[in-house]
Amino acid sequence: MTLRDIGEFGLIERIAERFPTAGFEGGSLGIGDDCAVLRRNRDELDLVTTDLLIEGSHFLREAISPRLLGRKSLAVNLSDIAAMGGECRWAFLALALPGEISVAWIDEFFDGVQERLAEAGVELLGGDTTRSNGPIVIQFTVLGSVSRAHLKLRRAARAQDLICVTDCLGDSGAGLQALLEGVARNDAVAHLIERHLDPRPQLAEGAWLGASSDVHAMMDLSDGLDSDIRRIMEQSRAGARIEVEHLPLSSQLREVAAQHAWSAWELAVSGGEDYALLCTVAPERYTVLAEAFRSRFGRELSAVGRITDRPGQLLYLRDGVQVDPSKLGFDHFKND
Amino acid sequence: MTLRDIGEFGLIERIAERFPTAGFEGGSLGIGDDCAVLRRNRDELDLVTTDLLIEGSHFLREAISPRLLGRKSLAVNLSDIAAMGGECRWAFLALALPGEISVAWIDEFFDGVQERLAEAGVELLGGDTTRSNGPIVIQFTVLGSVSRAHLKLRRAARAQDLICVTDCLGDSGAGLQALLEGVARNDAVAHLIERHLDPRPQLAEGAWLGASSDVHAMMDLSDGLDSDIRRIMEQSRAGARIEVEHLPLSSQLREVAAQHAWSAWELAVSGGEDYALLCTVAPERYTVLAEAFRSRFGRELSAVGRITDRPGQLLYLRDGVQVDPSKLGFDHFKND
Repeated sequence: MTLRDIGEFGLIERIAERFPTAGFEGGSLGIGDDCAVLRRNRDELDLVTTDLLIEGSHFLREAISPRLLGRKSLAVNLSDIAAMGGECRWAFLALALPGEISVAWIDEFFDGVQERLAEAGVELLGGDTTRSNGPIVIQFTVLGSVSRAHLKLRRAARAQDLICVTDCLGDSGAGLQALLEGVARNDAVAHLIERHLDPRPQLAEGAWLGASSDVHAMMDLSDGLDSDIRRIMEQSRAGARIEVEHLPLSSQLREVAAQHAWSAWELAVSGGEDYALLCTVAPERYTVLAEAFRSRFGRELSAVGRITDRPGQLLYLRDGVQVDPSKLGFDHFKND
Repeated sequence: MTLRDIGEFGLIERIAERFPTAGFEGGSLGIGDDCAVLRRNRDELDLVTTDLLIEGSHFLREAISPRLLGRKSLAVNLSDIAAMGGECRWAFLALALPGEISVAWIDEFFDGVQERLAEAGVELLGGDTTRSNGPIVIQFTVLGSVSRAHLKLRRAARAQDLICVTDCLGDSGAGLQALLEGVARNDAVAHLIERHLDPRPQLAEGAWLGASSDVHAMMDLSDGLDSDIRRIMEQSRAGARIEVEHLPLSSQLREVAAQHAWSAWELAVSGGEDYALLCTVAPERYTVLAEAFRSRFGRELSAVGRITDRPGQLLYLRDGVQVDPSKLGFDHFKND
């Protein structure tokens, strides 16, 4: 039996079984959420997240500039802190580079890292550099903090909660598809590609939603809504219903999808790497919260479905009629 | 200009220049020591360390069992916390595995990790698992803590300090050489190979030395004495004199080196991966400290040289006569 047989989630389950943590009440929370949580004292928690990016598996050197690679590899970790309602504090970088890489490449990579650090108000404090005989490997660890009252976990969704997202979905997946298919650039295509190569972690939105007790569960959208909502369902022992017609799509995605006969809603559901936040909201509090979100961020907090009391059941509805996403070619974009 | 031209230390300098941290007084200490240091409050500090191990660059899958690989990859990070005088608390693992790897391999790897965690009293709290299209990549981040009074930095060595090491040197390098040359196994060879494949981070020793104000600078021996003492010299703006005849050599190293005409002292000076601690001690306090160390750990705290007031000057003496290590084939073992 190989890793391929059990899959990544099979591996994570295997690891989580082996390392049961004391649980949050016992002082720490381990595997199964965007970040690990350490209890610092009665009110303060530390958040720790780490992501590994390997050339050839997660990026291609010729497909992304070193500056954007630096920005993106840090951004995905910052997004994990935001997804818990926290604020980013410190970063550590482990970097393996082949000997033939140019110093100019390294300098541009760090330009991107430095830009992103400055934007997020985060300090790079250390790490490890090493020679690689093979691929470039980039691994950021980010530490953040959150007050105990503001911490958002995947396990906190309740039946009847509205499922909300903080930004348009599918742009990043469409940008990747445009790159892979070599689609001719126009403004709309360029926008989608930029969303793929230079995602914007929703740091202010995460801290803001963290401060609201009307928000129950939260995580960031890295694998795509279809995959990520299942994480909330598993951790919350619940089901979910997604209303496809409510998925927020950018005008650029609509335009490019129409031109190339792509399914915009498929991209929105399973495109991945949008790094919007996915949260569940007390239904009776949604209107007030969404209004406050709009006046704070100038964007919609879109309600795209509901949490249900049917553990493991994920339904897609289009205008009230159930649709079967497995028949619509989702696997094109599965990040596996 | 490529990375090969500037080297790993050139790269680290370049990064450190770009990210000057506020310094320890300002609340944090970044690049340039075994760990990053975060000031938690007036008396308590957090330590963070991370190391990246890449198959083909840092290990060969066929040369080390998955269990020992799990033990070793965690051990090198634990050693960094010990090197600052701290205690290890929490670990995070980012792991990239190719699809063809067997579940049995993965299970044995985690057996090793779990053994080491239990030995060190450390909890694995999370991380990231991902599919690699190429090599296995293993990256631990370890968090530790230390009281401010016990923190040991590389920059704290003073002229006239005695340079001390907490264990025999060269065993690991000799074990590697035995593996590379396919030397026939006897008990002594097996001991050296075990020291290479299953290093013992000196956690209790690190915390004990951290608690002594007679110990000034400290770090762990990962690259070898010749390379590592230069880090203390740079950070402390000092020089050093190593007395070759005082380097502690195990009976096994002496035996195997004699059989195969290897230079035991060269291995001790530049073999690398011993993970003993290297520290500098107030000379007038050495006798009392070494006596207490011996009664606590049953081993010598060996004085192998002195810190001098000649920044950048590293001298080797054998029985009082200067010897030139560059003429003795050190480069065989340089970890570059």
